[in-house]
Amino acid sequence: MKKDWFVRELEGYSKLTGYKKPEKYTGAIKLDSNENYAVPKEFLESMMSKARERIDIREYPLGGTEKLVEEISKYLKMPKEMIGVGNGSDQIIDLFLSNFASKATKILTSDPTFGFFEERCKLYGISTIKIPFDKNMMLDLDKFLSNSKKADILYLDTPNNPTGFQFPRKDLEKLVREFKGLVIIDEAYVEFSDYSIVELTRKVNNLIVLRTLSKSFGLAGLRIGYFVANARIIDTFTRVIQYPYPLNTFAIEVGILSLKQSKYFEDVACLIKKERSRIISNLQQMKIFSVFDSKANFVLFATGGSGQRIYKALLEQGISIKNLGKIGKYDGCLRVTVGSEEMNSRFLTAIRDLLN
Amino acid sequence: MKKDWFVRELEGYSKLTGYKKPEKYTGAIKLDSNENYAVPKEFLESMMSKARERIDIREYPLGGTEKLVEEISKYLKMPKEMIGVGNGSDQIIDLFLSNFASKATKILTSDPTFGFFEERCKLYGISTIKIPFDKNMMLDLDKFLSNSKKADILYLDTPNNPTGFQFPRKDLEKLVREFKGLVIIDEAYVEFSDYSIVELTRKVNNLIVLRTLSKSFGLAGLRIGYFVANARIIDTFTRVIQYPYPLNTFAIEVGILSLKQSKYFEDVACLIKKERSRIISNLQQMKIFSVFDSKANFVLFATGGSGQRIYKALLEQGISIKNLGKIGKYDGCLRVTVGSEEMNSRFLTAIRDLLN
Repeated sequence: MKKDWFVRELEGYSKLTGYKKPEKYTGAIKLDSNENYAVPKEFLESMMSKARERIDIREYPLGGTEKLVEEISKYLKMPKEMIGVGNGSDQIIDLFLSNFASKATKILTSDPTFGFFEERCKLYGISTIKIPFDKNMMLDLDKFLSNSKKADILYLDTPNNPTGFQFPRKDLEKLVREFKGLVIIDEAYVEFSDYSIVELTRKVNNLIVLRTLSKSFGLAGLRIGYFVANARIIDTFTRVIQYPYPLNTFAIEVGILSLKQSKYFEDVACLIKKERSRIISNLQQMKIFSVFDSKANFVLFATGGSGQRIYKALLEQGISIKNLGKIGKYDGCLRVTVGSEEMNSRFLTAIRDLLN
Repeated sequence: MKKDWFVRELEGYSKLTGYKKPEKYTGAIKLDSNENYAVPKEFLESMMSKARERIDIREYPLGGTEKLVEEISKYLKMPKEMIGVGNGSDQIIDLFLSNFASKATKILTSDPTFGFFEERCKLYGISTIKIPFDKNMMLDLDKFLSNSKKADILYLDTPNNPTGFQFPRKDLEKLVREFKGLVIIDEAYVEFSDYSIVELTRKVNNLIVLRTLSKSFGLAGLRIGYFVANARIIDTFTRVIQYPYPLNTFAIEVGILSLKQSKYFEDVACLIKKERSRIISNLQQMKIFSVFDSKANFVLFATGGSGQRIYKALLEQGISIKNLGKIGKYDGCLRVTVGSEEMNSRFLTAIRDLLN
């Protein structure tokens, strides 16, 4: 019997919408994707020049990810046997889901959470138990704990995107320790926050902590993700689950050079936190928004019914931010990335002008 | 009930061996991974400099893969709606397997075939029907045809790695047209061969043809894979299955610049074919090897019982080739990449010296 199963199955997939990338507005001030413009372009360019001189792109990146892992190990002060890498944390998430989840899996997460993660669950037909944010854009620990036993996987981005929320450390640790399946804690924005739970991977053998060089290191274009977990998870992942060459030679070298300058990027993160405070207090002073505290390099604010209008008006002035619509009980939510000082001032001036 | 299913399941995975990468021998003449050293390093370096100037690695590669697809479209003279890209063809293979295959799937392929593909089948518990090469390192079309109905997926690398074999065009087309499941034709080495079946994707709606910039374009370090298939497959893949940003900004730009110089790389491929003939005829003249014809940038030769000894002796002289052991009925099979003229001469001299 001949089978055209593939064409039929493809039909099912084609009905999914997939992850929606932002629009590309050439020349706009881009505060829509939580990229890091507080890192000067020139600083990265000098690293790119050095990287270019060191590499031979005719060769497979043999031994490259191992060198990168060593540098991450120094940065985190965690053993290299506890570190794995991927082509962005997207790829690490995808490999864990495609290998360890199925249509029978239930994932406990927040609503909203990282968009790519949600789309990937839809792709694999994985069901989710979503705990919504409350009226202060906070998460209810008890609701998570009481739903823990119903779920196989816990996924939390902390700080959360798009709210900027982070559990108090004690609460998150309690939740992680009590959860018995696979725990995926996504710390993409952690360098802008108060704490990391990366050390907990030494004690909890079902925990993986995702990290990235896209945010605090300003390398979104290079797609460098990594994660920390106990040595058995890392060994199996790196040897069996990950591809032989997940990262390209250039990304590996720029990644290594950046990690060697981690002090510099810590200063950039400090600057971003200061700018974040400035954006929050300025938005609060305008008195018509609900502005939420943030532990990440972006600020969420609710505009009531004016979200779409403000979003469009800013775009007309060449400023692109993220239009999120309703979150929890809040209508017209907008998220603005903390960019360079100048970009932030342009944004604040533009929105102030709009209100006058 | 609390579940430690993840730790248990990981145990099963940890027993797999995974894809074995070659050893890294610093300073050795590297003829073990079918990389392309006939492309001068300086030529790629000028492209890297240009690419570096064009990119801002602080930004996600928004719109980047679309530009790359346009350039591939011009190179292949195929519509851009029929082209998808990935982080190496490894990633494209992996996404098709993780989405469209399961433990119930049967894949028809050759023995041997691309090592990464085989490992991925093991990872997902997919069973394979393997058709061995005959005594002339040829494949039996009838055996493929008679097994076609038992399989859900057909995977063939053509030219085949590690034999260099390519079916006569008519035979391959017949096999592809008759197969009713998903057909994956891996043309990684096709620029060194006699023909491509990429045009067949216009007519056959269950066919995907994999290609790469790692071989004839000499960009193995950048991990740029792509594939050609009918527009419905491409739309679903790109929108739903592929990640939003599978390739990094630098790889995209160097890829585009290389494709604009495709005539240059065609000349390199010509040189490689000439050098391949020289290697084959020199090895044949030594009279003690079975040397097989090749349509790729490598040559397979069988040494009887001396494979391990020759492999080690070459390595001691700083020449790394691939030791494959028994293939079909041939013991002591070795595979040598066609490198630059100088590298090839060094290899031939070294092996001639060994025999004296």
